[in-house]
Amino acid sequence: MKIAIDAMGGDHAPKEIVLGAMKALDTYKDLHITLVGDEHKIKAFTKEQERLAIIHTEEVISGTDEPVRAVRRKKNSSMVLAAKEVSEGRADACISAGNTGALMAAGLFVVGRIEGIERPALAPTLPTIGGEGFVLLDVGANADAKPEHLVQYALMGSIYSQKVRGIENPRVGLLNIGTEEKKGNDLTKHTYEMLQKTDIHFIGNVEARDLLNGVADVVVTDGFTGNMVLKSIEGTAISVMKMLKSALMSNLKTKLAAAVLKPDLMKIKTQMDYSEYGGAGLFGLKAPVIKAHGSSDANAVFNAIRQTRDMAAHQVTDTIRQTVEKINRNEIKD
Amino acid sequence: MKIAIDAMGGDHAPKEIVLGAMKALDTYKDLHITLVGDEHKIKAFTKEQERLAIIHTEEVISGTDEPVRAVRRKKNSSMVLAAKEVSEGRADACISAGNTGALMAAGLFVVGRIEGIERPALAPTLPTIGGEGFVLLDVGANADAKPEHLVQYALMGSIYSQKVRGIENPRVGLLNIGTEEKKGNDLTKHTYEMLQKTDIHFIGNVEARDLLNGVADVVVTDGFTGNMVLKSIEGTAISVMKMLKSALMSNLKTKLAAAVLKPDLMKIKTQMDYSEYGGAGLFGLKAPVIKAHGSSDANAVFNAIRQTRDMAAHQVTDTIRQTVEKINRNEIKD
Repeated sequence: MKIAIDAMGGDHAPKEIVLGAMKALDTYKDLHITLVGDEHKIKAFTKEQERLAIIHTEEVISGTDEPVRAVRRKKNSSMVLAAKEVSEGRADACISAGNTGALMAAGLFVVGRIEGIERPALAPTLPTIGGEGFVLLDVGANADAKPEHLVQYALMGSIYSQKVRGIENPRVGLLNIGTEEKKGNDLTKHTYEMLQKTDIHFIGNVEARDLLNGVADVVVTDGFTGNMVLKSIEGTAISVMKMLKSALMSNLKTKLAAAVLKPDLMKIKTQMDYSEYGGAGLFGLKAPVIKAHGSSDANAVFNAIRQTRDMAAHQVTDTIRQTVEKINRNEIKD
Repeated sequence: MKIAIDAMGGDHAPKEIVLGAMKALDTYKDLHITLVGDEHKIKAFTKEQERLAIIHTEEVISGTDEPVRAVRRKKNSSMVLAAKEVSEGRADACISAGNTGALMAAGLFVVGRIEGIERPALAPTLPTIGGEGFVLLDVGANADAKPEHLVQYALMGSIYSQKVRGIENPRVGLLNIGTEEKKGNDLTKHTYEMLQKTDIHFIGNVEARDLLNGVADVVVTDGFTGNMVLKSIEGTAISVMKMLKSALMSNLKTKLAAAVLKPDLMKIKTQMDYSEYGGAGLFGLKAPVIKAHGSSDANAVFNAIRQTRDMAAHQVTDTIRQTVEKINRNEIKD
């Protein structure tokens, strides 16, 4: 198993990317990693390791680059070269913590779509209070989605949850403004009807306020709404924690109490930290492409590698491809 | 000034509704209130008060009633009768904490739209870390919105923020998945172009993760997205507070620390509690119609009454009507 990693993407690249990769190589003895980026900078954090290769390049796609243009023009960037390792068969999967839009473009143009999948989806796993988490898709690969796209998201999310998250019969919910069948906009109404006719374990509409309670294992929505909900959850969690921190630091008395509570508060922070669940998968491509969070530290990178390895080992991509083929041959319902 | 209130709507009706009304009558000496509902149950919580009237009815619209049908059929329900007080000129504004969809329907069918306003919008004021708050609209009156609707939302939100919230030149943001001009779906791209051509103080796209930081005074979006974002914020805040509570109650040591922190934690809860900012206004109707939160206690009801009184006193409805008229006569840009 070989994974190509963009060593230059993310807020703490290359250091944390390289350290996460080294940890993964220590942990998984079947794993080979190719780091792509500035060899000199990368080598500051590597140690002797047979299963590590480095592809040197100095070109980098930045967070402010226009995604499609960057992928087309910066052909020697660390991100594009990592994707090429996959498309040219030298790696099984790739990871980047860099520009999300550019990685989606590299996934589409370099790695390529699975035949029959109309739109790839960006699918992070989000935390729940109970700790089980749920997959939300799409969160931004595709802003104007159609009902048939959402049905494919449901299918891909189900396969991922079965194969990687070990959930036998994943509950799929449609994100909507109410739980009643007739609720929502044109998109959700049509998607609801279509999902009911599939073999997917569709549990109906789910509301945004219930997501963190673990109301479903897979939640499908259009990329615009998904992105909004993801960022609302992130933003609110950060804001509440910020308010809490300022309350705890307001005077000596509260500071003493805060010291007592620190381990418990850290536990909440970890629980809310979705880098614990790995990166966001780009589902629907010919090989696993994973977007690690931009602020990833070594541990988050390690988790993204673990997840990518699981996706490759459990043939998530092949299963999606075969299932879509069968549906298109009308052998089974989608 | 007379406000009609549906005394039977909401989780804690009629008790908390009546107590909130009594407090408002004590506070505002120019205020008259008509409570609509079961006179016997209402009178359990009233005291002698000249400026209080009661309209007796036993019919109630419940939270599970289908909104449009309920308003059409339950013509003697407390909610419909409260709206009628407004449409027939006996009250200046009305309030309900009941079925949101039904109140929107009652607003449309009984109170009626301002001429020139294509779609009314449901507009709550949400909390920010700094305490200044922001108006979000639409959050569900209109699931499939067009760019021209969002421009009207921007206009109505600006007028409300000026008149009621005392913000001289309200910053209007367009909720989007990125801050760059070309981001988003068809709706946001077209709305962006239209908003740029208006006299509204449009500050561009704003992201969901920055809302609680006070990035804008008015944030416009379609009803579907707004509802999702509202419920994501609510759900996340509740979840984080729940996790915090269970961490604080986990053992004797943390319980003691929690006791010390209680006043500060309560402050956060209050800060996150948007009933402090009043109810959600239904903008674009011929008179102020306010939806108080379903879980409103007497204090939340009091705040909704204060807000309704401000809307009526500062002629928000008239200003919206006059501005739309001027725009339609092409005298000013919208």
